[in-house]
Amino acid sequence: MAVNLPPLGTLSTVRGVRIGTACAGIKQTQRDDLVVMALASGTRVAGVFTQSAFKAAPVHVCQEHMAESPRAILINSGNANAATGKAGIDDALQCCRWVAESLGVDARTVLPFSTGVIGQRLPLPKFAEGIPIACRNLDRGWEYAARAIMTTDTGPKAVSRSVDVDGKAVTVTGIAKGAGMIRPDMATMLAYVATDASVSQRCLDDLVREAANASFNRITVDGDTSTNDSFLLIATGAAGNSTIESSAQRGFAELRAVIVDVARDLAQRIIRDAEGATKFVTVTVEGGRTEAECLAVAYTVAESPLIKTAMFASDPNWGRFCMAIGRAGIDGLDTEGVALFLDDVCVARGGMIAASYTEQAGAKVMAQAEFTVRIDLGRGAARDTVWTCDFSYDYVRINAEYRT
Amino acid sequence: MAVNLPPLGTLSTVRGVRIGTACAGIKQTQRDDLVVMALASGTRVAGVFTQSAFKAAPVHVCQEHMAESPRAILINSGNANAATGKAGIDDALQCCRWVAESLGVDARTVLPFSTGVIGQRLPLPKFAEGIPIACRNLDRGWEYAARAIMTTDTGPKAVSRSVDVDGKAVTVTGIAKGAGMIRPDMATMLAYVATDASVSQRCLDDLVREAANASFNRITVDGDTSTNDSFLLIATGAAGNSTIESSAQRGFAELRAVIVDVARDLAQRIIRDAEGATKFVTVTVEGGRTEAECLAVAYTVAESPLIKTAMFASDPNWGRFCMAIGRAGIDGLDTEGVALFLDDVCVARGGMIAASYTEQAGAKVMAQAEFTVRIDLGRGAARDTVWTCDFSYDYVRINAEYRT
Repeated sequence: MAVNLPPLGTLSTVRGVRIGTACAGIKQTQRDDLVVMALASGTRVAGVFTQSAFKAAPVHVCQEHMAESPRAILINSGNANAATGKAGIDDALQCCRWVAESLGVDARTVLPFSTGVIGQRLPLPKFAEGIPIACRNLDRGWEYAARAIMTTDTGPKAVSRSVDVDGKAVTVTGIAKGAGMIRPDMATMLAYVATDASVSQRCLDDLVREAANASFNRITVDGDTSTNDSFLLIATGAAGNSTIESSAQRGFAELRAVIVDVARDLAQRIIRDAEGATKFVTVTVEGGRTEAECLAVAYTVAESPLIKTAMFASDPNWGRFCMAIGRAGIDGLDTEGVALFLDDVCVARGGMIAASYTEQAGAKVMAQAEFTVRIDLGRGAARDTVWTCDFSYDYVRINAEYRT
Repeated sequence: MAVNLPPLGTLSTVRGVRIGTACAGIKQTQRDDLVVMALASGTRVAGVFTQSAFKAAPVHVCQEHMAESPRAILINSGNANAATGKAGIDDALQCCRWVAESLGVDARTVLPFSTGVIGQRLPLPKFAEGIPIACRNLDRGWEYAARAIMTTDTGPKAVSRSVDVDGKAVTVTGIAKGAGMIRPDMATMLAYVATDASVSQRCLDDLVREAANASFNRITVDGDTSTNDSFLLIATGAAGNSTIESSAQRGFAELRAVIVDVARDLAQRIIRDAEGATKFVTVTVEGGRTEAECLAVAYTVAESPLIKTAMFASDPNWGRFCMAIGRAGIDGLDTEGVALFLDDVCVARGGMIAASYTEQAGAKVMAQAEFTVRIDLGRGAARDTVWTCDFSYDYVRINAEYRT
């Protein structure tokens, strides 16, 4: 059950990126589970990756191959190739070689990604069969890729925007997958945003970090970080603009705004489609001394099982918010400066319940499919926001049944 | 539903502690919800308290009154008197005065404790009526107190031990309550351990910290820390032993062992009775460089919603354990040194699935009501243990319905 997950709109192709998909039958035999993206020569790629110590084999290989000029991306769903030791690395490299053979490029220019069950070897024969098929079908739209990378997602997540950069029409299209194990530490499970703009490597590296911090690094479903988190920003340069070399350059601000917008839209779609979610909740913490302390409070609230179950029940149990704010580890927090709002309803002020507050007003806000929890720490000017969802029976059901 | 929660055995009275209870009707009208403990002159008390910034009013008052020689303890269930501002402090002080009047002691020697709903003022008239009743019935057994402090607990938690200290028979009896909002930061919701041994203040202060770290500071249900956590260690001195002044003294080791044992037993009973729990799980992490890193991994595993739902499903989804170990923030962890065991079954070794492992063997262990998850980090000699439970439909139900 998703919360207002938007249907796919029209997805624009990105000049310089060709997409092929195939059904390799890795876990399911009913739908595509392999994606190959062939990248035009000269394409630049920047990425952020999971901080997990159990970084998956394809993430290791991908980070190594990023040093070359990438010519292809391989993504499979159904198996994460994580916690598979040295054999997993070899498997990922073998898959890169198969892509390279089919496309006639160097294997070191292929970036591999996997998502799915952790701890099992890839079924290599299925890749040997599926990869050439995907490489023969490089005329698919982005919606094929968005569907093929899904695991427990109930729907595909993709969005396109266009923008004028230095007099050239530029396209930005992105896809993402993820529904559980979502507390990205650098990026989400898997997300790919591509543009035909020409951007220097340094600028692209900055942009991917900036976009991640405004999107995938601001969402949480369950506080659990995946071993395979990867967010890739691809710039093919096919639009023909003069290469953006610095943030001062004409067109940079416009392009950045659209990339951040696409990344944030994708991140929010992940929360809308979160496992068992019945509510999409924005948690904004303001009045902090630093953004870091705003984030600490926001994540503690967004990940508290007691708050998430209260959200599910539409119960404005504001004592649980106090509990979470109290345990967020904010040094020297004066609780008498703290205020709490549900949308525009002031629930607490001065560290205690507001005189004007009624349970009815609070419950009405929390009964909505979407609402904002706003916390004012009353000690500074910093603010930050994370997006999260509630904790329902279905979250337990989905995760108790996932492998069975 | 509790997991092998032991019934109350015989509870020994502790000379120097007299207990009275009353039904004040604070939240429910069917059972006792007020406890008064009258302490003999000369009793020493040491405590550890919640680290929450939203520390409840009675915790503030209690910590101030600890400076005096305490003569009475007042505990109520049904209302936490937390996030109630200055008015909450006044309410707690008023309750102390009523106890003082009834017992003929100074109000500053009364230690107040509250547990229950956060964010609501105490119903003072009910205390005005109930306190004198409890003070007239100072002949109750500890089981009355254990029952009167319950909130969402399905059963009372108490235990007694006796020990020879320096030739004197000494009793240690403890009670505790708690079932949710359990990730004590210094102690659990509420726990009281009393002995008739004579112990110096300095020794008692050390003992309460040591006992908390071996018990209440090693359990988690949901990672949520209460605003009212308090663990009190009471020594009346009525046993007549020569006062224990240092850890080198005869009888100290024996007394410490029994106090730690009682505290750990109570802490484990809290997990056995945790909200919605169907499994009692011991998480031991060994082979760490420091106890701190063992604890970090143990808590990440014990609080991961994905692992807790897998525990509920008896699903040995070992990839989720890798995920949790990977995100625990252990600097420079070499995953090839990591091993995972479910009881005696080796699931993974060298960072990947063990050759000898079968899913059937793992599932059999996890289907038990009690089992141990043992993780070897393979990089040192430190180890530590926490106790936790699974995440079930009932956890969601209980916490979605708590106030309604």
